[in-house]
Amino acid sequence: MTQKIILLILDGLGDLPVSGKTPLQAAKKPNILKLALKGMQGLMSTIGRGIVPGSDTSHLQILGYEPDKYYPGRGPLEALGAGIKLISGDIAFRANFATILGNKITDRRAGRIDNSIAKALEKEINMQIDNVQVIFKATFEHRGVIVLRGKGLSANISPTDLHCLGEFKLSVPLDSTPEAKKTAYIINTLTRIVRANLESNPINIERKQKNLPLANIIIVRGSGTFRNIIKFNEMHGIIGACIAGGTLYKGVARYIGMDVIDVQGATGTKNTNLKAKGYAAQKALEKYDFVFVHVKATDSFSHDGDAKGKRKFIEKIDKELIPILEKTGAAIVITGDHSTACTRKCHTGYEIPILVYEKEGRSDALKGFDEISAMKGGFGYILGKDVMPIILNILGKAKMYGS
Amino acid sequence: MTQKIILLILDGLGDLPVSGKTPLQAAKKPNILKLALKGMQGLMSTIGRGIVPGSDTSHLQILGYEPDKYYPGRGPLEALGAGIKLISGDIAFRANFATILGNKITDRRAGRIDNSIAKALEKEINMQIDNVQVIFKATFEHRGVIVLRGKGLSANISPTDLHCLGEFKLSVPLDSTPEAKKTAYIINTLTRIVRANLESNPINIERKQKNLPLANIIIVRGSGTFRNIIKFNEMHGIIGACIAGGTLYKGVARYIGMDVIDVQGATGTKNTNLKAKGYAAQKALEKYDFVFVHVKATDSFSHDGDAKGKRKFIEKIDKELIPILEKTGAAIVITGDHSTACTRKCHTGYEIPILVYEKEGRSDALKGFDEISAMKGGFGYILGKDVMPIILNILGKAKMYGS
Repeated sequence: MTQKIILLILDGLGDLPVSGKTPLQAAKKPNILKLALKGMQGLMSTIGRGIVPGSDTSHLQILGYEPDKYYPGRGPLEALGAGIKLISGDIAFRANFATILGNKITDRRAGRIDNSIAKALEKEINMQIDNVQVIFKATFEHRGVIVLRGKGLSANISPTDLHCLGEFKLSVPLDSTPEAKKTAYIINTLTRIVRANLESNPINIERKQKNLPLANIIIVRGSGTFRNIIKFNEMHGIIGACIAGGTLYKGVARYIGMDVIDVQGATGTKNTNLKAKGYAAQKALEKYDFVFVHVKATDSFSHDGDAKGKRKFIEKIDKELIPILEKTGAAIVITGDHSTACTRKCHTGYEIPILVYEKEGRSDALKGFDEISAMKGGFGYILGKDVMPIILNILGKAKMYGS
Repeated sequence: MTQKIILLILDGLGDLPVSGKTPLQAAKKPNILKLALKGMQGLMSTIGRGIVPGSDTSHLQILGYEPDKYYPGRGPLEALGAGIKLISGDIAFRANFATILGNKITDRRAGRIDNSIAKALEKEINMQIDNVQVIFKATFEHRGVIVLRGKGLSANISPTDLHCLGEFKLSVPLDSTPEAKKTAYIINTLTRIVRANLESNPINIERKQKNLPLANIIIVRGSGTFRNIIKFNEMHGIIGACIAGGTLYKGVARYIGMDVIDVQGATGTKNTNLKAKGYAAQKALEKYDFVFVHVKATDSFSHDGDAKGKRKFIEKIDKELIPILEKTGAAIVITGDHSTACTRKCHTGYEIPILVYEKEGRSDALKGFDEISAMKGGFGYILGKDVMPIILNILGKAKMYGS
């Protein structure tokens, strides 16, 4: 059989000890340990020692795309993930429905409005301003993406979502180019028109009557410019597919030209259907050399400071997902994109354990798989940029350097 | 005594497990293990994690010559190895006698003709075309090297040896420079004249009568331009010698200005005289600080998929070569240039074990020396570019950085 491989990224997998053990250490994970015994481990810094990676840059780096060269900003990745087809030069933002009272933001999430409400309000935001087309798409709850399409735009403007409540500030150009000036003007004009549109929309009139926070403004952050870049199969000489629930991860995959496989029940949340993802990966291996499976909930539990929830979720992955992946016969890489510490509720720069299992490969025969056992792993210390070369070597698809 | 050092490169040493053990793991190697117990081990990627190195680039890298800067292509290294004195600007190729029928290559090796036949045919290829001198030298069986010497040439042309049988394709320039155009023209003209010469040569007339594959064409690959580069002794401040059977390794040594010691019976094949190489190294240490000893057969066994042969050959090295080297009192570094997996019959990007032994040095006291034991080595993970600094440090010849 041709060698195939699964890259399983458990988001925010690495952690710090809580009562003496990290969630990964504490988790009962017999199926992962079977792979560990036959595989090789290492500790990885995705970007560099101690560097705290974002989820966007870390995934790009692991998949072989140096962020310094290829990171387009968060906005374009989210827009692609939301299913918007971007064209070169598009400026994209993450956008929130929020509540504004006078000139003060009083709720950055407009009371976490339902998907259906956000969807119904979409039409108030899609418009043309001067020669710029504004494309808005609601994604999850109060979240969405905005794309500005037109000539002479720049992503170098200040966000209107400042990640905190209080006085609303207009966007300002961050350099003196006419492009930045124009784009800030478009965003500010859009904000003004959208506010008027939203406040007169029946949904908000009803919410006002019910004393619910109004979804009466759109605030933006994460601006970035989309450009076409070299595709994953051209860069690596293998064809890859992505199985993910979270918008960002689908966006990263689409950005690098990787096929995204939609899986019923793969939500990117704590209730995601792990078995469905496993079966989808199994099926994908019939067609693809490389299947990237992303699981978000490990990171979400960390952000909530819920070490027990994280541990239990890892146990669920071990029970429901790993056996399906193992049965495929493919090589398996299990790692995270970064460490997210439950005790800190945020991303950290601590190293992440990585496990590489291939049936006829080398083994360091470790009995554990966690942040501590991986310190004794046969790989020693690796960087995120090493992952794809390791994978290509396993697949026998690495180009020889020299002759 | 002044400290001296032997760098023993067992080509393609690293491997994957076959029935649970790599050939190096399986080999009985009491003499190597004595060194291991007193030495330090590590795992090495010659170029970078997972990168599959060629034998040429990997040797350059280990000897301190960054391939990105110094790799001249395979042709010049082979030509130097064959004993041709190159001058700056020479274009060199690997060349094969092959069999062509009509316009189809039917045997890339012309029935693996004897050295003597190849030698006798040399004169049909050495010629002048326009103002370009064509120098051909037969090396081993059907193999040889071609050098084009003249003004206005370029190595950027397509090979006529495509590594497969079927339609013969003329060389084409790979850029639009007059140099590339001229060089492709020279190669194509040479090919045409050589074919006529060879077909009327009595050797081929006889082969035709005996129904043997004709050696009636020369096909080329691995083009490269020779330039003079900084010599080994200037770069490192030590004088070094090379003991190798294989043409390429002699060529690498000559390219970097290292003396090549000819050893009777050092053939670069499975029948090489290991003891003779050992005694030659012993003698060379009288004059040189650094002796690079190359053994090719470990790689050849891997390419043949012969794990048992590789194991036995390692045992032979342990028995015949190591004791002689050990008795010299010199420090000894044992490693490979890359891993060649018997199960895959090709170079791979898996890490290579490296053992550094010096009498009064540090020791990690490991009881094994192989791909697995080296995971626990005191060096951890190193790169090929680390080898020469480690060696210079042992020799006490490293220049201080700062003061």
